[in-house]
Amino acid sequence: MTDTRNVTADRLQGFIASAFRACGMSDGNANRMGTLMAKADIGGQYGHGVFRLPMYIKRIRAGGMSVNPDIKVISERTATALLDGGNGPGHLVMSRAAELAAEKARNCGVAWVGARYSNHAGPAFLYAQMPLAHDMIGLYVAVGSANHMPPWGGTDLLLSTNPIAVAIPSNTRPDIVLDMATTVAAYGKVKTAADRGETMPEGWMIDKLGQPLTDPTRSSEGLLLPIGGPKGYGLSLIFGLLAGTLNGAAFGKDVVDFNADARATTNTGHFIIALDIAAFADVETFKAQIDGIWDEMKSSALLPGVEEIRLPGERLAATTEDREANGILIPKALGNRLDALAVELGIERL
Amino acid sequence: MTDTRNVTADRLQGFIASAFRACGMSDGNANRMGTLMAKADIGGQYGHGVFRLPMYIKRIRAGGMSVNPDIKVISERTATALLDGGNGPGHLVMSRAAELAAEKARNCGVAWVGARYSNHAGPAFLYAQMPLAHDMIGLYVAVGSANHMPPWGGTDLLLSTNPIAVAIPSNTRPDIVLDMATTVAAYGKVKTAADRGETMPEGWMIDKLGQPLTDPTRSSEGLLLPIGGPKGYGLSLIFGLLAGTLNGAAFGKDVVDFNADARATTNTGHFIIALDIAAFADVETFKAQIDGIWDEMKSSALLPGVEEIRLPGERLAATTEDREANGILIPKALGNRLDALAVELGIERL
Repeated sequence: MTDTRNVTADRLQGFIASAFRACGMSDGNANRMGTLMAKADIGGQYGHGVFRLPMYIKRIRAGGMSVNPDIKVISERTATALLDGGNGPGHLVMSRAAELAAEKARNCGVAWVGARYSNHAGPAFLYAQMPLAHDMIGLYVAVGSANHMPPWGGTDLLLSTNPIAVAIPSNTRPDIVLDMATTVAAYGKVKTAADRGETMPEGWMIDKLGQPLTDPTRSSEGLLLPIGGPKGYGLSLIFGLLAGTLNGAAFGKDVVDFNADARATTNTGHFIIALDIAAFADVETFKAQIDGIWDEMKSSALLPGVEEIRLPGERLAATTEDREANGILIPKALGNRLDALAVELGIERL
Repeated sequence: MTDTRNVTADRLQGFIASAFRACGMSDGNANRMGTLMAKADIGGQYGHGVFRLPMYIKRIRAGGMSVNPDIKVISERTATALLDGGNGPGHLVMSRAAELAAEKARNCGVAWVGARYSNHAGPAFLYAQMPLAHDMIGLYVAVGSANHMPPWGGTDLLLSTNPIAVAIPSNTRPDIVLDMATTVAAYGKVKTAADRGETMPEGWMIDKLGQPLTDPTRSSEGLLLPIGGPKGYGLSLIFGLLAGTLNGAAFGKDVVDFNADARATTNTGHFIIALDIAAFADVETFKAQIDGIWDEMKSSALLPGVEEIRLPGERLAATTEDREANGILIPKALGNRLDALAVELGIERL
C-alpha cells in the first residue's frame, strides 16, 4: 500500500499499456490505449482516465470486451462509413473512425463515420481533437454507457448523459475544445462527490418525486437533470438516435449499464465528423480569426465577482501543459486499486 | 382597423408572397417566401412568421436586403459547398443550401453546406426538415441576428441565441424535430412577454450586476442566460464559429442587430447538414425504430404533476395539423401592422 503518488505521463502510459498487453492485446493497440487513457488524466478528466482501467480489464477478463477486436467497415459511401467495432474498446474503434473520417474529408470536404459494437471510449474531447492534426474541425458524439436520465417529465431511466465534443483549431491561443454532457452534471461528477463525502448542489439531480436530491450516496435513487430542461432532454435524445439507433447500436432501454454488468455486450454507438477547413476558408486566416474571437471573448467586461472569462478548452490546455511538465497525482485509493491490478496481471506496479 | 382575425394557410402564404412581389421579387421566390414564412405560423412559431414581414420589407426598401439575390456557390467539394447568399433573405439562401446538401448527400452519404451574406431565415426547423423529403436527416445551425448574451461570466453582448435544429424521420409517429436556442429563452419569448405585460421567470435573464431580471420591458439592460451555464455558452460559441466564422460570415462583435438597423448588411451565416439514412441503415427499418423509441419515451412513468411525456416535434406536428385545418389566428396589433403594410405596398390586405 502506498500514499498519493505523482507519476509522469510516460510512466502512466506505459503502465496502462502493460496492463492491456498482459491481457493479450497487441503492442500497437496497447500503446494506443495507454496514450489515450493517459491523455484523459493529463487533461484533467480524472474519471475517464486510468481510473477506468480496472473496469476495462475486468470486462476483458469476463469476456465482455474483445482485447484484439476485428474492426470492420460494414457500409461505406465516399463521405460516410459505418464501422463494426468488433466489441473492442471504444478508444480503438473511435481512433480508427477518426482516421477514416479525416481521410474521407480530405477528399470530400466533410465525412461522418459512425460505429456500432464499440465500448466506452473515455472522454469525448480525445476524438474531437483527432482531426485537428489534419487542419480539420472535429465533432464527436456518443451514447453514454449507462442511463441516468428520464425523458423530460418522466422517471424511467431511458437516456444517458450523451456527450458532444467539438474541437476547432486556433493559431497561437489554445484550440477551442468543447466537451460536455447534455446533463447538468456528468455522472462521474456525482461519483466524485460521493467519494469525497460532499453534498451536490441543487439542480444536478432530483428524486422520483421531483424533489432535489443532494446526497450523492443516494444517486441510484435519483435522476440526472438535463441542461435547459426539455432542451437538454431533446439534445440527449437526438444524440442517442444519431450515435446509437442510426448505427444499429444500443439506445434507450437497450443500453447496458457497463458499471453493473461486465459480461453483456454493450453495443456502444458513437459518431465522428471531420470537416476540412480548407473546403470553406484559408486555413491560416481561419486560425487567426479564432485567435481574434478568443481575445474578443476574454476582453469582455465582467460580472461582479468574476475574475476571468474562460474559453472552452482553456483549462484542458493549461492542465495538459502542467501535468506533462509536473506529472499526474494518483489519489491513494486509486493507487491501491492499481497496485492490486498490477499484482493480478503480474506487471510492474505504477 | 380590424379585430383578431383567422386566416387560412393559403391566404397567409398568398399575402406574404404578394408583399414580396410588390417589392419586385420574382414569382418563384415570392411564393417560396410565402410558403416558408407561413409554415412558421402554421407550426406555432409566431415570432418567426408573418410577424417578421414588416421588418423584412422595411429592410428590402431601405436597401439592406436584396430582393432577387444572386445566390452563388463560391467553393465546393464533393460533399461540401459554401454559398454566397447575395444578401438575400435567409429563406431563399438556405432553401438553396438544403437542396444542394441533399443532392450531394445522395452521392456522398453526407453533405455540409454553409452560407455567408445571408439574412434572418425564420425558424430553424424549416431547414432541418427539408432533407426529410429525401429520406435524410437534417441538421441546421445559424448565427442569431442580434447579440443578447455575453460569454459566461461577462457582460459584453458578444453572442446570440445561436439555434440548432435537427429533424429525424419516423414512420407513423410525428417526425422528431428539435428546434432550440442555446439560451434558456429565445429573445422572441422575451418580446412576447413584454407585449403581453407578463413577468419573465427567473433564469431567463440577468442584469449587468448578475441579478435576476424579470421585467421584459427592461430587456435591453439585460443578458440572456445560456442553457446549462457554461455549457450553453460553449454551444453558442461553437455554433457561431461553425455557422459564422468558418463561412466568412459575421460572428461576435461583427453581428449586426437586424432589429435596430435596416440598412447594414448583416452577413448572416448558417449551415445545413444532410445525412442519407441509407448510408447507415435500411430506411424503413430505421423509421420503425424511431416509432419504437417514440413509444418507449411516451410510456415512461411520470413525475408527480406531469400529464404526458412529449417528444421534440410533437407539438409542432399537432399545431401544424390544427392550423392547416382551422386557420391561423392573427392578433389584432399584428393585423393592424399588416394592414398598414398592405396599404403601403398597394396589395390586398390579409
